[in-house]
Amino acid sequence: ESAARPARLGLCAACHGEDGVARMKATPHLAGQDLDYLKLALAAYRSGARDVPVMRAAVGALTQAELDELAVWYAAQARVP
Amino acid sequence: ESAARPARLGLCAACHGEDGVARMKATPHLAGQDLDYLKLALAAYRSGARDVPVMRAAVGALTQAELDELAVWYAAQARVP
Repeated sequence: ESAARPARLGLCAACHGEDGVARMKATPHLAGQDLDYLKLALAAYRSGARDVPVMRAAVGALTQAELDELAVWYAAQARVP
Repeated sequence: ESAARPARLGLCAACHGEDGVARMKATPHLAGQDLDYLKLALAAYRSGARDVPVMRAAVGALTQAELDELAVWYAAQARVP
């Protein structure tokens, strides 16, 4: 069964879509992405290793548990466009 | 029709697969990813904005035309696993 819908999904959905199919140009699709990679990317946005202001702002507002929940959600989404 | 098979695809395929479905843990799937995003990510690996040694080495060996060709290839791959 697919992952439970994260409470914070709305924060990501504007750009990444609830289904992980990007709604914005130059924005990655997240649907079916590798879970470990998603967690690495989120950690990089949080630490600033990836210096992307919009992501630092979004990630900064979330707990680690919420980030993990979002990563699980997007990794679980079907990659069919 | 799908993009022409890039001459340098072998450099990426070991980790990302020729079809863009990652063969390694913590490695992103590239199949069907947003083209602009792929180009941004490659530029970040080349500039060091994304400080990932293996990617800096791989990207450093390629011309911009070769990078663009690879980005087009992976963006064109079906996202069905």
